Amino acid sequence: MGGRNRTRNNREIERKFLVKWLPDNFKRSRHFIIEQGYLATEPTGRQVRLRKTNKSVSLTFKVARSSHREEREIKLSQNQFAALWPGTVGRRLRKARYEIPWQDVLIELDIYRGRHAGLLVAEVEFPNRASCRRFKPPSWFGREVTGGKRYSNVRLALE
Amino acid sequence: MGGRNRTRNNREIERKFLVKWLPDNFKRSRHFIIEQGYLATEPTGRQVRLRKTNKSVSLTFKVARSSHREEREIKLSQNQFAALWPGTVGRRLRKARYEIPWQDVLIELDIYRGRHAGLLVAEVEFPNRASCRRFKPPSWFGREVTGGKRYSNVRLALE
Repeated sequence: MGGRNRTRNNREIERKFLVKWLPDNFKRSRHFIIEQGYLATEPTGRQVRLRKTNKSVSLTFKVARSSHREEREIKLSQNQFAALWPGTVGRRLRKARYEIPWQDVLIELDIYRGRHAGLLVAEVEFPNRASCRRFKPPSWFGREVTGGKRYSNVRLALE
Repeated sequence: MGGRNRTRNNREIERKFLVKWLPDNFKRSRHFIIEQGYLATEPTGRQVRLRKTNKSVSLTFKVARSSHREEREIKLSQNQFAALWPGTVGRRLRKARYEIPWQDVLIELDIYRGRHAGLLVAEVEFPNRASCRRFKPPSWFGREVTGGKRYSNVRLALE
């Protein structure tokens, strides 16, 4: 996720759910297309990701183990991005992201494009553990898949 | 290596040798300290490396299989580097590099520091395959270790 909320050591607290149906009026939310690809990924969850949106291009280093993550992100210039992007051939994915306010948090609804079209996933990042525990998912959320590898972006990009 | 010579598709032709003894007057050659660390490495040879010298900081994506390599490198700003470098903790190495002209090529002699102190490795990058075949190693070169994983920088950094 975008790295807005961090605990110490750049760790994130977030939960991830499949989506049963698209919520009313979701198209009115702020949204944009995300294209991303992976330069290298380790089975233990270390990864280096390139991402392009309509606003900016970035490189992100992540260590992703269960619900705890370390994340370090830098903005790239267009030239830096163009030099590295070909290294992600065959390891890319595209999705439309909708940012939907819900209670005291922001839900990121990802609608996958391309060969994963039809897959809908929602992520919520929490400012602290208490907020994470308090969270009541909206009715359109399906099964929680936090920490599961099946719907990780790395796996979707590589398969 | 620094990426001076490339065939199509950013592939490099290079050979790597252990070093039996330090050549006469090597200290007069151009030299500098290299500090590098790995954000992520795959067993198949894909890797993302950060490198810092007295001149610049860079991020390099490599696919390294046997004697053929794909390499994509970008210069980073000091801020970009500082944001990513902590992600390489426990996966770093330091060495002094001496650039020694020999016949029509440049030998890169690496003198490792820190826990690999005592290890000496020489690399030669060739402008084309003919030059690679013609190469006669100088007397101070030892066993060729091209393509071997034992002396790869990734392995040295991780062990």
